[in-house]
Parts: sequence; structure tokens; C-alpha cells
Amino acid sequence: MNAPTSFDQLVPDIHQRDTPAALIDALKARFGDQFSTALVVREQHGRDESSFQAPPPAAVVFAQSTQDVADAVKLAGQYDVPVIPFGIGSSLEGHLLAIQGGISIDLGRMNKVLMINPEDLTVTVQPGVTRKQVNEEIKSTGLFFPIDPGADATLGGMAATRASGTNAVRYGTMRENVLGLEVVTASGEVIRTGTRAKKSAAGYDLTRLFVGSEGTLGVITEVTLRIYPLPEAISAAVCSFPSIEAAVRTTIQVIQLGVPIARVELIDNNTVRMVNAHSKLGLREEPMLLMEFHGSPGGVKEQAETVQEIATDHGGKAFEWATTPEERTRLWAARHNAYFAAIQSKPGCRAISTDTCVPISRLADCLLDSVKEADASGLPYFLVGHVGDGNFHFGYLLDPNKPEEREIAEELNHKLVARALSLEGTCTGEHGVGLHKMGFLVTEAGVGAVDMMRTIKRALDPRNIMNPGKIFSL
Amino acid sequence: MNAPTSFDQLVPDIHQRDTPAALIDALKARFGDQFSTALVVREQHGRDESSFQAPPPAAVVFAQSTQDVADAVKLAGQYDVPVIPFGIGSSLEGHLLAIQGGISIDLGRMNKVLMINPEDLTVTVQPGVTRKQVNEEIKSTGLFFPIDPGADATLGGMAATRASGTNAVRYGTMRENVLGLEVVTASGEVIRTGTRAKKSAAGYDLTRLFVGSEGTLGVITEVTLRIYPLPEAISAAVCSFPSIEAAVRTTIQVIQLGVPIARVELIDNNTVRMVNAHSKLGLREEPMLLMEFHGSPGGVKEQAETVQEIATDHGGKAFEWATTPEERTRLWAARHNAYFAAIQSKPGCRAISTDTCVPISRLADCLLDSVKEADASGLPYFLVGHVGDGNFHFGYLLDPNKPEEREIAEELNHKLVARALSLEGTCTGEHGVGLHKMGFLVTEAGVGAVDMMRTIKRALDPRNIMNPGKIFSL
Repeated sequence: MNAPTSFDQLVPDIHQRDTPAALIDALKARFGDQFSTALVVREQHGRDESSFQAPPPAAVVFAQSTQDVADAVKLAGQYDVPVIPFGIGSSLEGHLLAIQGGISIDLGRMNKVLMINPEDLTVTVQPGVTRKQVNEEIKSTGLFFPIDPGADATLGGMAATRASGTNAVRYGTMRENVLGLEVVTASGEVIRTGTRAKKSAAGYDLTRLFVGSEGTLGVITEVTLRIYPLPEAISAAVCSFPSIEAAVRTTIQVIQLGVPIARVELIDNNTVRMVNAHSKLGLREEPMLLMEFHGSPGGVKEQAETVQEIATDHGGKAFEWATTPEERTRLWAARHNAYFAAIQSKPGCRAISTDTCVPISRLADCLLDSVKEADASGLPYFLVGHVGDGNFHFGYLLDPNKPEEREIAEELNHKLVARALSLEGTCTGEHGVGLHKMGFLVTEAGVGAVDMMRTIKRALDPRNIMNPGKIFSL
Repeated sequence: MNAPTSFDQLVPDIHQRDTPAALIDALKARFGDQFSTALVVREQHGRDESSFQAPPPAAVVFAQSTQDVADAVKLAGQYDVPVIPFGIGSSLEGHLLAIQGGISIDLGRMNKVLMINPEDLTVTVQPGVTRKQVNEEIKSTGLFFPIDPGADATLGGMAATRASGTNAVRYGTMRENVLGLEVVTASGEVIRTGTRAKKSAAGYDLTRLFVGSEGTLGVITEVTLRIYPLPEAISAAVCSFPSIEAAVRTTIQVIQLGVPIARVELIDNNTVRMVNAHSKLGLREEPMLLMEFHGSPGGVKEQAETVQEIATDHGGKAFEWATTPEERTRLWAARHNAYFAAIQSKPGCRAISTDTCVPISRLADCLLDSVKEADASGLPYFLVGHVGDGNFHFGYLLDPNKPEEREIAEELNHKLVARALSLEGTCTGEHGVGLHKMGFLVTEAGVGAVDMMRTIKRALDPRNIMNPGKIFSL
């Protein structure tokens, strides 16, 4: 596999469409000070956490209501101008880049929790509410929302990219936890999908069609989510291992035994070192698993004992337990700060993050060979993973001014994805396709399946105005 | 709401398309003795467990491979003739009825378990494998597949209707448990969706678009499923209550507390009586909950104690426990035989089964008023429910030769659905829309959402040959 390395190779659909002055005038008239063409505002809405750059959008609308979104989409549609939904800008895959120009619709001001139904374990939010915000607002009910991508992302953005995180091994991803949506379609119409009932067999699953559609089919303007009782008991543990392999084999066995572990995260020795340097945590600089157990006091104890036994069999040592919220927060800081600790370890660098996910039995095969390749490349990297799901991330740290580093990183990524696909896995467990994985998607899903996605896209967005050029080229 | 009661009112798209002799000849030439136009075979493939009747399909193809399905679809497509996938004929909603004529594709001979991956907790099957068969074939691995609609349905049919059953409260429905599919599209092309990885963010969720599409977008020819370790301990209990309300309120509290109960099924006193008459079980003829707990021995004990306490608070009594497989089977026979016991209680009758599902806090409101209405109607009925999911079924027993009984049943059903929708629920938790709920779907999802489904259908099946006239009219 020859890794495409330039932006043009990766992103076939880059071409700026015109934004007619008449549209700018109409948006200005409709939105007043909720509208901006200031360069600094446009630039802020034209980049994300990916390593790519594109010209910024032509303008930004700050939506405050579903009607605002519908009107912006309708106006843009009249001129065949793209609209790009913007949450908080934490995409890792270039989802927000205005590669065909157009208008960014910032949903950050639609940040109200609309309805908390503790008795049904549901909450309904506007798309700009972040995951931390929703947890803050429902805290008094004794319930929580488990999905936690690294960033404090918006729930609209998380739904649009089918995000997950460290709790997915027990609670599932956005796929399993979105019950219903309100969506503004490409024609500016407002539809609702799903209900607050826990299950339904009523027609096509439009909810899950929009979850993971990356803004290419519509703009999500409301999300109804499942929430969960805070466990009676929570216990976290960190355990060091003599090798990555030992940590991975421990994980595989825990999952295969059906232990209902709530979190099991791998951090490699490189990354522990970066985190220690960044956050002064004083952790043993060896590969480690960070784990969390949820349940009744008895259940948590049982789970922890089983896992400790398995880990010990694989040479795991230096178990450190945390049961108070403060201790747990300290342990989890290692995981949550990994990305920023890594970025800061090489000043001025950008990270290319991989996101393969494989069946659990293939995890060691997929991961260990890729570690060897990364080590041999000489490029610094971090390695963290939601290993209980078979999902992990290498972050290759590259100097954006050194094309040869990008080449090395892309080559490593390509080898890793090829390996994951040959092991019946996927190129992306949770970050989405965006700009960076369009080629991989075709290899993974096949031309026929991607053509079916294109057919759906063309049918629902005939003028190709909804975040065009992402997931696949048209 | 005026309940439409005649078949014509319920099913707007009934019109027989011609099946040209040239197609029959071509199918005969291609399929030989895998093809039949015998009336008895056609009639067997032209009915299901619904209360409706339509002319049988023009012919039946017995597919033995994906290629067979693809060839049959391609041939039918050349003549714009409908194809209707047939599993085992257990649909309750008329999914199999050839209301526009066409060819039935029987997938019952595609009944091989293709791949068992115990180490990944997945199994891949052909669509004609039934749920009991898959459990038989994976038994030696210590794993099981939990989804259990009443009938021993095929996994292709269960995927197509987004089926669930008694274990869904803990393990989810086909929505959560199908990892990937192979599908023959309307053009006869073969595509694959999903991978064996537990999660993925790779493009549109075609898997979940096909799950629940009721044969209207393609024919499912392979299904990859999640399977689960058999619990270390299982305990079942039956508990009688002084009223349906007491049983329902117990359930609501159990769910709201987050008890990970594996099954919690309501059986009303009517139905207990029918089951006693049918299976001589000698159960107390009072409303009852049938429950099952899965986990470690300690976990099961904890769950059971919590639930028993809640039940006792609501007047629950006569707890009967079963921990051996034989005792459990006897208890569960009451639930599994309910449908047939009811049908046999009124010779020659057909059942119209309701399938509403509401948020758990609304369950009592939805159910109790509907019980009053059903009692007042004088029509015999059974009432069973996956109450932990907010899903329950009235089965109104009607004499198919007495139109006035159908009118009463449809009126009850309409009132119940209107009530469920007003309580933010759905008209169908697990049976699908089929022919019977097309009107309800529009009320529930709204014209815009149903139009979006139509747009997808037209794009993926431009000649409308895939099980036409189901879910919505075109």
C-alpha cells in the first residue's frame, strides 16, 4: 500500500465554491450580530484537532435555535453553498474544514439541557451542550452520561461522529446511547427521529443513520440520550506490566470471561513518561492498564479480584487502588492528559492519531507489530487505547514543517490500517472518517457499500451542500 | 381517531403486478427443483401469523446461496416483479404477504452457522438459521445468543424486523446485537456492512439501516451477531401480585434503580388462566411477573433480594424460585406458551397483537387504561409484556368471520397506540410496521421523517421491487 501523504491526494474533493455576496447579505439581514465574516472568527471555525489546513469558511452563523439552523440551511441551499455544523472544534479528522468553502453553523450557543427524565433514564439536550456540562446538570439526580471522548466535545458533534471513549466497553457508544434526534435536513425541513421509548421497530432507523453521518446528511439540533444510575460502588486501579503484550493479553482474557469491567485503558511506557513529565504523577514508567469497576460493593469486589488474578498471571504488579473520587481523578488524569502531554513533549508538533479497532482476539496481533514498526521509524509517538473494545490510538508526533515526518507517519498509519482490516477490524473505532480515512473506508467497506452511502447522500442532499467532501467523494 | 378496519383501508398499496411467463421460465431454468409454482407451496409462503390474507406469491425460489438470492433478485428486477424474503413465516404484521404479487425467496435452506468466534464473542450465520439452532450450535462454547422473540424465528427475519424478546431489557435488541451483514441489494449486487470489531465510526451505519428495514431495501444473506458468556449463575422467580398495577409499579422501580435484571415479564390473570388450561401448570391465577437474574452467584443473590424487597412492598407474594434448568424451563413455559394457549382458548380465532412501547415511567399510565378498555369491550384477550422495556402486547382474540370483532379489536388498538404516542412511546417495540402499522408510523414519526424513509427507499430500490407496500406506501 502506498500511503498518500499530501493533502490533495488525501482529499480529492477540495475545490472552493463561490459564496455569492447576495447570500452574505441575506444572512447578515437574517442573523444580524449572530453572523460574522471576521477573519479571526472564520479561522477559528475552519480548523480542528486534525493535522490538516484548508481555507476558512466564508462566514459563520451563531445559531440560537432550530429555526436559526433551518433558515441558515435554506438560505445557503438557495445558492448551493455548503454548510458545516460546528460544535466545539475537537474533531481529529478534518470534519470542520471548509474544503469546498461555505458557511459554518456554530451550534455552541444552543447549549441548554431541555429535559431531564430521571425516572426514564433519559435526558434531552441541545447540540451545543458538552458531555461535562450534561453530567454537571444531571448530577443531582444520581444519574450520569458515560460517553467520554478525550475532549469535552458537544453532544451534537459526538452524535455526528458516533463517538465513544473509555466507558464504551461497558456502556456502548453514541450508537447505543442516542434514543432520538431532531435534525434540520438539507432542504431546511425539521424532522424528529426515534422516541423516548427504549426500543422501537417503527420503520427505518433514521436515528442511527444520522449518528455517524458527520454532518453530511443534516444538522443535529436536539439529542435525546440514555443515562445511567451512578454505580453504588466505583473502584479504580492501575497496574503496571512487564510488556505491552502482557497488558493486552490480560485485557483479552478479562473481556472473554465476560467481566463487566467499566473501563480498561492501555497506556504504553512512552506515554507514561510524557504524562509524568507533564503532570508530575510519578507513575512507574512501564506499560499500564487503568481500570474501573462499577456495581454493588460486592460486585465491584468480585470483578476486581478476578481481574487482579488474571493480571498477576501475566506479570502485572504494583496494583494501586483508588476508591475515593479524588484518588480516582488523580489516576485518570494520566489517561485524560495523555494527548496534551504528548503534544507538549515536542513543541510545535501536530499529532496524526490512528483509530483502528479489531475483534478482541486480534488485538495483540494488530497492536504489537505496529509498536515494532513505530519504534523502528524513529518518530516519537504516544499509544493509548480503549483496549477492552479492541480500539487503540497511536499518536505520531510530527513537525508540520517537515514533510518527511508526515510521510513516515502516514506510512505507519497505512500499515496499521491494512493490518487491522486483514484482522476483520475497522479503520476507525470512534473518530470518524472525515477527510483522512476516505481511502481506507473504500478498502474496508467495499466499493458497493460506499456507493450505497453515496446514493443515500445524493437522495437526501441532492445539491451536496451538507458538509460536502467528507466520508467519501461524490 | 377512527380506526380503519378493512384490509383496503389498512393497506393502501394493494395491487397485483403481473408476473410475466418469461420470468417464470427464466427462474425455472435457473433454479430447477429449487423453484415452485405449486399452489400449496405458494400459499404456505403467502401467509404469516398476522390476521390478514392476500393472494399468494406467483412462485417460490428456495435459495441455497447468496448467489441464488442475487440471481433471483436480478431476474425479478428485469421484469419489475417484487421479491419477498421468507424466513420461517412468523411475522405478526403481514410482512410476507404478496400484496403486489411477486416471487417469495425462501431462505430456510441457507441454514448454516458459518463461523463461531468464541474468543471474540461473535457468530456468523446464514439468514435461515433460527435462534434456537444458533444456541444449540454454540452451546459447547459456553456462550449464548439472547434475543428471543416468541417464535423460533430465523436470524435473517429477526434482523429484518429489528426483533427483540424477553432478554432485551439486559442484552438489547437486534439493533444492538447485529455487528455486520451481507445483503443482496435491489440491483442484485452483494454488499457487506460492518465488521467483526465491536464498534466502528466508518461511514453511514448501513448495518442498522438494514436492521428493521423489513425486506424493503435488500435481502439479508448473512448475519454476524454478538454472543455472550453464559452467566455463572442464573436464577428465575415468579411472583404473583394483587393487581396488574402492583406488578407494573414493581417493574418500574426495579428498572429505575438500575438492577441489571435479565428478564422481567408480565402475564395478566387472563393469560395465566389460559396457560394453566393449555399446559396444566397450576399457577396462581393472578397477575404475575416472571423474572430472571444473571451474574455471579453473589450478584444474582443481591439482585434477587433487591427485587423481592420491592415486590413485597407492592404486595407481591408467593415467590417461587427456580435455579435448576428444569425448574426454569417449567416457569418460562408459561410465558413462551402464552400466545398458543390464548389462540387455542378460542377455537378458530386469530389474534391481533399490539406492540406499543413507552418510556418506563409511563408504563402504568399506558397499560392500565388500556386494560380497562379491553375489559369493557367484551373481546377476549391475552396480555403479556416485556415490561422492563416498557413494551407489552395485548392479543385481541377475534373470529375472522365476524367483522364486528375485528372492528372492536382495531378500535382498542388505535386507542392504545394513540395513548402510547401521547406518552412519548412508539407504536411498535419489536414486531415492525409491516402492513398493519403504516398509518401509526406516520402519526408517530411525522410526515417529514416518513418521507425521508421513502426517499431512501426510492434511491436504493428505484423500481420498488423489494417487498413493496410494507412500512409505508410509495
